[in-house]
Amino acid sequence: MTSSAAPGHDRPGVRDTPVSRADIVAAAARLAPYVRRTPVMTVESALLGTPGEVVLKLELLQHGGSFKPRGAANRVLLARAAGLVPPAGLVTASGGNHGIAVSYVARALGLPAEVFVPSASPAAKRERISALGATLVVAGDIYDDAQRAADRRAAETGALLVHPYDHSDVVAGQGTVGRELADQARGLDTVLVAVGGGGLLAGVASWFRGEVKVVSVEPMTIPALERALVHGEPVEVGVSGLAADSLGAKRIGAVPWACAAPFVHDAVLVDDDAISAAQRRLWEETRLMVEPGGAAAAAALMCGAYVPAPGERVAVIVCGGNVDPATITG
Amino acid sequence: MTSSAAPGHDRPGVRDTPVSRADIVAAAARLAPYVRRTPVMTVESALLGTPGEVVLKLELLQHGGSFKPRGAANRVLLARAAGLVPPAGLVTASGGNHGIAVSYVARALGLPAEVFVPSASPAAKRERISALGATLVVAGDIYDDAQRAADRRAAETGALLVHPYDHSDVVAGQGTVGRELADQARGLDTVLVAVGGGGLLAGVASWFRGEVKVVSVEPMTIPALERALVHGEPVEVGVSGLAADSLGAKRIGAVPWACAAPFVHDAVLVDDDAISAAQRRLWEETRLMVEPGGAAAAAALMCGAYVPAPGERVAVIVCGGNVDPATITG
Repeated sequence: MTSSAAPGHDRPGVRDTPVSRADIVAAAARLAPYVRRTPVMTVESALLGTPGEVVLKLELLQHGGSFKPRGAANRVLLARAAGLVPPAGLVTASGGNHGIAVSYVARALGLPAEVFVPSASPAAKRERISALGATLVVAGDIYDDAQRAADRRAAETGALLVHPYDHSDVVAGQGTVGRELADQARGLDTVLVAVGGGGLLAGVASWFRGEVKVVSVEPMTIPALERALVHGEPVEVGVSGLAADSLGAKRIGAVPWACAAPFVHDAVLVDDDAISAAQRRLWEETRLMVEPGGAAAAAALMCGAYVPAPGERVAVIVCGGNVDPATITG
Repeated sequence: MTSSAAPGHDRPGVRDTPVSRADIVAAAARLAPYVRRTPVMTVESALLGTPGEVVLKLELLQHGGSFKPRGAANRVLLARAAGLVPPAGLVTASGGNHGIAVSYVARALGLPAEVFVPSASPAAKRERISALGATLVVAGDIYDDAQRAADRRAAETGALLVHPYDHSDVVAGQGTVGRELADQARGLDTVLVAVGGGGLLAGVASWFRGEVKVVSVEPMTIPALERALVHGEPVEVGVSGLAADSLGAKRIGAVPWACAAPFVHDAVLVDDDAISAAQRRLWEETRLMVEPGGAAAAAALMCGAYVPAPGERVAVIVCGGNVDPATITG
């Protein structure tokens, strides 16, 4: 691996972005005690209906059932090192997965945490947040409502606001998924990544920096990145559908946009039927229990929203597994 | 890797057994088109309550949700190459997982298959067998009843009997789990393996041949190997409890016994409460949905039936995931 110390200047000719490979390398070292190196598995072409085998990055096996502890831990560890974590501890908003991650990090570091979730957040995610010892507050119907409530609360208490995606330290943490994947599956041509607020996409794009094609996948009902690419800047979209609890941001974050926009090769959309079909098929054929947002990227291959060329070596990040199994098997 | 061509003579001083490393190397090449190389994941000591990290071999992600296609495919491919598969195809008996595996192999090779299962076989396993196109027959209450029915049927039709464990080609196929694990997790001291009829244990022991400690794990309600070690030969035991559908053989097979007995370091037993606690904890902390037989080896660490020494590098084979999720989350 080569990377300069100067953020945004990893490779000549690639424009500056807020997160560099060096940031991600540093994050990986910082995070190592708090995250699992999740495995990859190569699956046969018939599973996803592709011309060749596909690499699955099994990030749903991470602590807390999603990639989110990477970004949360990097953000909090850097803030703590800078003396920026007050006695009030941490406050955050989340559809659920990031809330679980912040709760997990807070417990590991002995910090109090308050987590705002919308009513759309599934019971299984809320229970996990409470079980980890954080204070759970339900605020509003969708993630953006909860975020506004968390912002107000941070202003009141002075607690450190740990944004789920719109912070370069969070993006650098999520970028460690890309770094691991590059090490685990050499010679990739393409990586498919689900997008909500854009933190994971931004992290992965900040690692690969155009050397591997990054393809974003969003539900048709929440096309925040796809619309931003059309408009040339983040715009507001509606939030609904099966994956709204994990991919339900109204607009791409400013930091993720700055990190990802130069490097996104293609932005594809999938409908809810494709997502639930992918969930069922992943359970039936691989025994992976995947939440809607976690299955979106696989769904893009299965439903033909993204069609690899013959010989194209594709990876899919299976990014979350916090789901009531009865919604898949029932 | 080093192995001689002569079965049973891989290392000077190690006694002859029915399956050699060379047999397993040959099986691995033969099987490659039909099985997944399942991943390993290193998990923190807190998960299993051990002094150090533990390596999980995620064999539940295999085709058909268990390790069984390895042995079944090796057996059938060798028989086919020898012209021993008649037009009647394959017949087998199984608690369910091996039946799924034979059905999968039969479909892949275009062969008919008839699968005998006991009434103890869960609906999810039976449905999978039928969905794969095999003929399903329910015979008796436990696996041994189904095996007798399959033996009679094989005599009637002339179909190739694919025994779930008591055949050296099946054991050699299962041994590929050990070979992969050795490649994926270097420097192991100990491997924990669940035991029913003993095929997986025998395969893994035939690979490691005493160089890594192999510890068998059985339900207290089906202690077939533990009793065999006490008596110095396979003896009949009762079959009951939570894992009876996958570990429910009345006695260790003769071939597995000959393969494994020289190399088993310790035989531990776990109760059903430990198994169900392990299932719940694996789901909550890793999002792996594991069947009772698949969770038994992890349960041995969690409940203290096997206590590693400080610094001992331990692997657990998570060998099956064919379970109704409601039995874990409900």
